[in-house]
Amino acid sequence: MRPHNRQNDEMRVVAIECGYTSSPDGSVLVEFGKTKVICTAMVEQGVPKFLRNKNTGWLTAEYGMLPGATDERTEREAAKGKQSGRTVEIQRIIGRSLRQCVDLDAIPDRQIRVDCDVIQADGGTRTAAITGGCVAVALALYKIHRKQAFQGFVAAMSVGLIEGEARLDLEYQEDSVADTDMNVVMQQDKGFIEVQATAERSPMSPSQFQSLIALADLGIRRLYSIQAGCLQEWYH
Amino acid sequence: MRPHNRQNDEMRVVAIECGYTSSPDGSVLVEFGKTKVICTAMVEQGVPKFLRNKNTGWLTAEYGMLPGATDERTEREAAKGKQSGRTVEIQRIIGRSLRQCVDLDAIPDRQIRVDCDVIQADGGTRTAAITGGCVAVALALYKIHRKQAFQGFVAAMSVGLIEGEARLDLEYQEDSVADTDMNVVMQQDKGFIEVQATAERSPMSPSQFQSLIALADLGIRRLYSIQAGCLQEWYH
Amino acid sequence: MRPHNRQNDEMRVVAIECGYTSSPDGSVLVEFGKTKVICTAMVEQGVPKFLRNKNTGWLTAEYGMLPGATDERTEREAAKGKQSGRTVEIQRIIGRSLRQCVDLDAIPDRQIRVDCDVIQADGGTRTAAITGGCVAVALALYKIHRKQAFQGFVAAMSVGLIEGEARLDLEYQEDSVADTDMNVVMQQDKGFIEVQATAERSPMSPSQFQSLIALADLGIRRLYSIQAGCLQEWYH
Amino acid sequence: MRPHNRQNDEMRVVAIECGYTSSPDGSVLVEFGKTKVICTAMVEQGVPKFLRNKNTGWLTAEYGMLPGATDERTEREAAKGKQSGRTVEIQRIIGRSLRQCVDLDAIPDRQIRVDCDVIQADGGTRTAAITGGCVAVALALYKIHRKQAFQGFVAAMSVGLIEGEARLDLEYQEDSVADTDMNVVMQQDKGFIEVQATAERSPMSPSQFQSLIALADLGIRRLYSIQAGCLQEWYH
Amino acid sequence: MRPHNRQNDEMRVVAIECGYTSSPDGSVLVEFGKTKVICTAMVEQGVPKFLRNKNTGWLTAEYGMLPGATDERTEREAAKGKQSGRTVEIQRIIGRSLRQCVDLDAIPDRQIRVDCDVIQADGGTRTAAITGGCVAVALALYKIHRKQAFQGFVAAMSVGLIEGEARLDLEYQEDSVADTDMNVVMQQDKGFIEVQATAERSPMSPSQFQSLIALADLGIRRLYSIQAGCLQEWYH
Amino acid sequence: MRPHNRQNDEMRVVAIECGYTSSPDGSVLVEFGKTKVICTAMVEQGVPKFLRNKNTGWLTAEYGMLPGATDERTEREAAKGKQSGRTVEIQRIIGRSLRQCVDLDAIPDRQIRVDCDVIQADGGTRTAAITGGCVAVALALYKIHRKQAFQGFVAAMSVGLIEGEARLDLEYQEDSVADTDMNVVMQQDKGFIEVQATAERSPMSPSQFQSLIALADLGIRRLYSIQAGCLQEWYH
Repeated sequence: MRPHNRQNDEMRVVAIECGYTSSPDGSVLVEFGKTKVICTAMVEQGVPKFLRNKNTGWLTAEYGMLPGATDERTEREAAKGKQSGRTVEIQRIIGRSLRQCVDLDAIPDRQIRVDCDVIQADGGTRTAAITGGCVAVALALYKIHRKQAFQGFVAAMSVGLIEGEARLDLEYQEDSVADTDMNVVMQQDKGFIEVQATAERSPMSPSQFQSLIALADLGIRRLYSIQAGCLQEWYH
Repeated sequence: MRPHNRQNDEMRVVAIECGYTSSPDGSVLVEFGKTKVICTAMVEQGVPKFLRNKNTGWLTAEYGMLPGATDERTEREAAKGKQSGRTVEIQRIIGRSLRQCVDLDAIPDRQIRVDCDVIQADGGTRTAAITGGCVAVALALYKIHRKQAFQGFVAAMSVGLIEGEARLDLEYQEDSVADTDMNVVMQQDKGFIEVQATAERSPMSPSQFQSLIALADLGIRRLYSIQAGCLQEWYH
Repeated sequence: MRPHNRQNDEMRVVAIECGYTSSPDGSVLVEFGKTKVICTAMVEQGVPKFLRNKNTGWLTAEYGMLPGATDERTEREAAKGKQSGRTVEIQRIIGRSLRQCVDLDAIPDRQIRVDCDVIQADGGTRTAAITGGCVAVALALYKIHRKQAFQGFVAAMSVGLIEGEARLDLEYQEDSVADTDMNVVMQQDKGFIEVQATAERSPMSPSQFQSLIALADLGIRRLYSIQAGCLQEWYH
Repeated sequence: MRPHNRQNDEMRVVAIECGYTSSPDGSVLVEFGKTKVICTAMVEQGVPKFLRNKNTGWLTAEYGMLPGATDERTEREAAKGKQSGRTVEIQRIIGRSLRQCVDLDAIPDRQIRVDCDVIQADGGTRTAAITGGCVAVALALYKIHRKQAFQGFVAAMSVGLIEGEARLDLEYQEDSVADTDMNVVMQQDKGFIEVQATAERSPMSPSQFQSLIALADLGIRRLYSIQAGCLQEWYH
Repeated sequence: MRPHNRQNDEMRVVAIECGYTSSPDGSVLVEFGKTKVICTAMVEQGVPKFLRNKNTGWLTAEYGMLPGATDERTEREAAKGKQSGRTVEIQRIIGRSLRQCVDLDAIPDRQIRVDCDVIQADGGTRTAAITGGCVAVALALYKIHRKQAFQGFVAAMSVGLIEGEARLDLEYQEDSVADTDMNVVMQQDKGFIEVQATAERSPMSPSQFQSLIALADLGIRRLYSIQAGCLQEWYH
Repeated sequence: MRPHNRQNDEMRVVAIECGYTSSPDGSVLVEFGKTKVICTAMVEQGVPKFLRNKNTGWLTAEYGMLPGATDERTEREAAKGKQSGRTVEIQRIIGRSLRQCVDLDAIPDRQIRVDCDVIQADGGTRTAAITGGCVAVALALYKIHRKQAFQGFVAAMSVGLIEGEARLDLEYQEDSVADTDMNVVMQQDKGFIEVQATAERSPMSPSQFQSLIALADLGIRRLYSIQAGCLQEWYH
């Protein structure tokens, strides 16, 4: 049995609270069960060097975890003076994924800075960050009157194989024993943006691979409507 | 007039929510008006080198600010690879202040790690961090069955002179124009732990100095009862 | 037409030279067309802290690029004092992939250090590094008389979509214009180890995704025999 | 009894030698008993970004300690690649204090760089640095013909409680056992610039706090005349 | 007897392969026996700040060593985040030496970036780097049609005293036991560019010093013709 | 004519003051004309890892420059978080040179830490540091009752070619225009320890090289008696 009696294709309760903090152009608190991430989006003037004078915009993301987010304290990266390899890898996938949400040519010479900070970690922090970050980006575009630059919801799910069974939305105690871990990012009505599959313990067969993809697709479809619902509620 | 029609000796609404996150031994969300700080306390085995084999414990604190906590985005220190001078200064005063809460000899060979992370900043982040951090430390000591090691509430207030008037608990728009800024840390029934007064624009006279000290003392007394109240509620 | 008149399912000439340098336990020069990578494997006593006293071994990988490997000089990371996010991401995937080659319990308390240094870059450096690194690991295991700890060839291919067509083994001028870029790592007779698909320009449909996976699988099968061939030649 | 038979309200012999080195615009060697600090002030063209085009000037300070300044060697911060929290805290208070000496609008687009390097440390290095640094700043302003930009002497004293008694100008062996340590910075004819009081061992009562303030005030008044005397001698 | 039955005044087999990689303006693989170094030279627009608007050019060099170049793995400097003192010292001597090859006024506002990366180390890596780097610089100047800016071959040799005997071109097992180690850099028809003599075990007498200088001079003369030969072959 | 009417073979006034500061085991202020360097030597328990359990001792040196030591302020390396290449190179030559002063087997499991900090720079800082550092080491050995471990004075001189003439002990305005710069380190009654010759502008002929060596030798002999004189005075 899965923890909390979940079915293999059942995801945790997902909640997205818009306007969680007030300074950023867009701010949400996203929860996937016990995993909680603050996602903010702020629009700045100016773009990185390689885009100057190209009449386009840009989006970058950074990821962090509060030291108290895990059962055993995680060292503060600012104090160590270095982001871990895991952090770097995660913030790169968040950035690539969320750039697909935005028509960058519609925000010339502006950069959207997305920050995803985990305040409680129980597996799936990167998928929660992408799913919540997309809503923060939408809020920010609305705030700067560039609603039309939003190109459709992007959401993400983790799936994994445990004792040969494909499970949706792994929590930490599952993640740590999974044979295979896969994170899938999709965009509504468009298809796959990122697939990152890793065989932690043993390689996966083609059919296992396909069933994981299908399960992730199933979960992600439900996320689109949660994203749409929270935005709708916020504007009404 | 002050923002929000506050009187000079009126502090903002202060709220402390115990058990804000679940992994740390102690965890609170503290709010001084719009300023919001997550304070966690985690107890680890082992002490720094200089205390080994001395049969005593230790407490250290770290401070951070989410990039989206301010109106203009603050660079992430983990990404810059360096904590700012301001951060270093703040986390040192938090650590020194909270060490007074704890009878360190009663937790031999253990270290309490306090983390204060600002999720929204509107002035007074260090005083909120100390006030909330003290409650997190109390929760952690209770959790590890060392309630008797807690040595009394420590709380902090900022005060400042604006156009010659002493004001309590400055918010950001006041802080940025104050002639003088003072942070005071006290311990219930004991007295002053830290006084940090800085004349930002012009030196303060002895009488101005004295009226600021008195005003801080007034505010801090109210904080003790808020700290006691939230703990009481948590345990009942 | 593709550069060098290649067919869409045709990979570049792949060559693996065993024993390229003499100090490491295993050393190869791997070439995918103009891309050239030196892969070395060295066996050290001792394992990282989290594995001590567990009677098992470990493998880690690092990746680098000579400043002169690209047409425009790449800044030396040692001089900047920091590895780029791209480097970190690549060396993590190399490490995870090559750990599957080795029965870590069969090399207790030893660590295999793999280094992949690109001396000429023309696309596909990470897939070349994994493919060549696997041979270096095999050589190192033979050298320390742990041949039986080798668990089968691991190889990798990049595939991508350009103007709707799936192409195998992209070189740099293709990579820079691809709509989608996918790196696939597989193990002989076992299945998928890593799939990293990234929609650089627009999301990919499920059928595009499937055809890329199939094309990668096709190419990787050819790599296994090149790996086996060069090892056989080296030992005879 | 205090070391060297000092009375509680007796400070150590203070000497300030102007023109200690010849390259800087202002340079002094300041001694508080065995504590010796080289303070230099150099005027540079240009101001930090946040002040550009505002027709004003700026002053910053840095602090360091030679490795051989203490009985046990202090690690060289340049070799460690990082300034300690203590260093950062001290150089910030020096900078804030000395900015009060200068009418920054009278030196538009110029920055005064103050460096305080401790060559022998026996307690009170930050108060010596501020007291000597003020003279170096005065010398530098005279040198660039901006004598009128000098706004009055700034000086600093440490005071502390030992076994309930308030003592002036603690030396190292006193500092290390004090219950409370307070550093006070004042400006002649104006009042308090900084007060930093820290209860190292136990909180201080309001009356103890007041007696420390009074004692520091007493000592600082004597410093003003030493500062004035050494400047007068230098110019005659 | 020396290793490989070499005479004291006999250097190892030296080979220089032009055009080793194709991206850089100049690229060679240089071998001094088992020591192998890739040297590349790339010409960039722009010069360092201190040379701007002076109508001249510049040359800098960087040095690195692959982790697998030595019998015991050398930590990757990019991963440690810091170049070692030895690396810094070596790249500075390479840079100073190779600047003598070039008439910098003949390449105004351009900078030659030389990179020397050791792929196998058996003593004499800095002398191989200088000798090979000079050829890479010549190739780069030819490539940008500034052949006339080349000012003559620069080459380098190591010599050392072992049990009182002067030996030419030390390999690692000799270097590690030498009493004295000397690196000499000369320019054809011109004279000494650098002499770096270090008495590792005991000081050397004036006559020992002179015999080392003479032996280095002898070896370096042979290198000029190898440099000339490989260039000639490359252009024909 | 040379500055200050010096003859080509005339060195500046050299003064060495023993016991300049009181904490270190050995401490001197050394002056070569306007160049002033504080050299301290401190003896610590323990040796670096590579020497443990070998029944021997060690000596290391570090070098620094106060920001105000030069006419234009030098950035503080501790604030930049990195030692410059020049600093690294200099402290390595100081360390190698001073290790020759000491019979390391006579101080088993102890390490002498030498720190050379330039408080005023006018050329020749590294030669002053070595010459003064040797005296600091002698003082430290006497202090720990290991006088017999001192193996003879080590001293250093800079020489250079300016318009074809060899000059002794260059000061800054000469150093910056010299064609060739050479630093020579010798040990009394023993010979050469280090020779570092650099042709800054054009290569030097063998005869120029020899006349520089001879001139340095001449100057260094005078330094031995200054070193001996100051030590003698200190002990009587």
